[in-house]
Amino acid sequence: MPQRTGKYTIELTQKPSIIGYAAAVGKKEAEGPLGKYFDKAFADEFCGEKTFEKAETHLQKCAIEKAIKKAGLQKSQIDLAFAGDLLNQCIGSSFGMRDLGLNFAGLYGACSTMALSLALGGVMVDSGACNSLVAAASSHFCSAERQYRMPLEYGGQRSPAAQWTVTGAGCAVVSHHRSNAPYVDKVIFGAVRDLGITDPNNMGAAMAPAAAQTIARFLNDTNTKPTDYGMILTGDLGTTGSALLKQLLSIEHKLDISAVHNDCGNMIFDIEKQDVHSGGSGCGCSASVVCSYILERINEGSLNNVLFVGTGALLSPTSSMQKESTPGIAHGVLLKKG
Amino acid sequence: MPQRTGKYTIELTQKPSIIGYAAAVGKKEAEGPLGKYFDKAFADEFCGEKTFEKAETHLQKCAIEKAIKKAGLQKSQIDLAFAGDLLNQCIGSSFGMRDLGLNFAGLYGACSTMALSLALGGVMVDSGACNSLVAAASSHFCSAERQYRMPLEYGGQRSPAAQWTVTGAGCAVVSHHRSNAPYVDKVIFGAVRDLGITDPNNMGAAMAPAAAQTIARFLNDTNTKPTDYGMILTGDLGTTGSALLKQLLSIEHKLDISAVHNDCGNMIFDIEKQDVHSGGSGCGCSASVVCSYILERINEGSLNNVLFVGTGALLSPTSSMQKESTPGIAHGVLLKKG
Repeated sequence: MPQRTGKYTIELTQKPSIIGYAAAVGKKEAEGPLGKYFDKAFADEFCGEKTFEKAETHLQKCAIEKAIKKAGLQKSQIDLAFAGDLLNQCIGSSFGMRDLGLNFAGLYGACSTMALSLALGGVMVDSGACNSLVAAASSHFCSAERQYRMPLEYGGQRSPAAQWTVTGAGCAVVSHHRSNAPYVDKVIFGAVRDLGITDPNNMGAAMAPAAAQTIARFLNDTNTKPTDYGMILTGDLGTTGSALLKQLLSIEHKLDISAVHNDCGNMIFDIEKQDVHSGGSGCGCSASVVCSYILERINEGSLNNVLFVGTGALLSPTSSMQKESTPGIAHGVLLKKG
Repeated sequence: MPQRTGKYTIELTQKPSIIGYAAAVGKKEAEGPLGKYFDKAFADEFCGEKTFEKAETHLQKCAIEKAIKKAGLQKSQIDLAFAGDLLNQCIGSSFGMRDLGLNFAGLYGACSTMALSLALGGVMVDSGACNSLVAAASSHFCSAERQYRMPLEYGGQRSPAAQWTVTGAGCAVVSHHRSNAPYVDKVIFGAVRDLGITDPNNMGAAMAPAAAQTIARFLNDTNTKPTDYGMILTGDLGTTGSALLKQLLSIEHKLDISAVHNDCGNMIFDIEKQDVHSGGSGCGCSASVVCSYILERINEGSLNNVLFVGTGALLSPTSSMQKESTPGIAHGVLLKKG
């Protein structure tokens, strides 16, 4: 049964396990440093579909089906699916759910979606409301570029702080505690924070303040320090946002996370060789990194106690054109070795 | 603690109460049959803001603040907010949450969002993960028209099955059981269902199959019949969708709900006099009807045992242009007099 710990954190006392996880990605992601950890890589950006949006749906379905299979379950044993993406009206997820036939709670947390779905999924299983469920998220470079920025054919130049939207999806199957499997120990839901960033090409700076707030709240609630963790893993702040996060935590909270910090946006690509400027981004970035490399390392025992803090920039092209700044949000889950 | 009942339904054994609720609407909604039940009506479609999108945020904030006040709580006592809307990247909700400072789990369920937020909110409180939280949703006629259809200035003609997006927001504060307050007794999360409707102006037909599925599953899980309920209230099928729902339930499940069925889309406007064709729609439709008239009647004791089934059409303009049909979804909550 979930239990509140401090002002913001929720402890999951039944320790729901992640009994299956999978990631499906595109070509560029497969060529990156984590390539060998992904379950499936598509050489073709259409993934055999007719449009980029349908390709994103295909990726998400692929990750979900693979994760359910790896968990040793049938689709009929999945009580609920939490999923989301970046597309208008979240069509990346809803069309996949149509084909999968799962009960579906749609989420929108921008790039924080994987953490949000894991946090809600953890609570649902811990409480007994669900026996097994899936938590998933996806993004696609091509569908995101033409929706948020420019038609790909335009070939617009990218600014130094810009990040590269990951083509990928990740899925975790959350279920009752099972020894040896990674489990969700605690979760924290974040609040929106906006320090006034108005450059829509600098998402890292827009999300860093929310990440700092959620990390500081979690450490305070649990009376722990950064070095108590095997890793404090942010979603996709990239190089620009990661540097700002460390500055903010140091200035606002006198916290130094440098020894244990890493960021999915910095891990998924070889930033210099793959020409991705400030790193990876998109819902699929942390989804595919967590649901492959991170959970695999926890599973095999070479990493433990990972505070995964997914970060999202809650803007839209309309809000930017209406001269709004970019609000950020960050949700966290503490993942442990079972 | 939530407990599974049958294959799809979840019983909330602690019976979390709705200790406050409020709705804020536009001029046309205030002039409709439920006008006197709304907490706040704006004569100006901008609600004093500079854009329609900011006006929608204003409506949602207004409903949330009013509901928290009516619950006798402070914002600092709200552990989490579930909220969503129809705008791209859900900016109607996220910008409101920035100003309110609440911990925020963003949802996307199209017009089913109010039911989805109440269902998740009910489970979170029942499980002990949260003490008090808000569940909210909003829509705005002007922001929806220009995003989904045509610029308002174009004055496009509307087809007979078209519905009128409600300018409105509703919010319910879910908290521990309190005698006499309405409470959430059971919840059910729906699956996506798509019978191939491709007319983006006929949302009622696209959503009716999902509503039929969720209602049939709930009745089966709980071993009850339609007349056991004071009302089976669908989200916003409108007149077209309501007729189809009854046909589907009769043909597929031999169920007759006519004696107890009503639909928020049919209730919020005087369909003939207010020239709304097939009725009201939008996340704000069921949100404002449930968080005013329905909860008020349950509260005063003139209505009980309301199975509220929020319905959503999970399309986007892009999916329609890519010749996809329209998937529907329906989530349910059983509301009772405390």
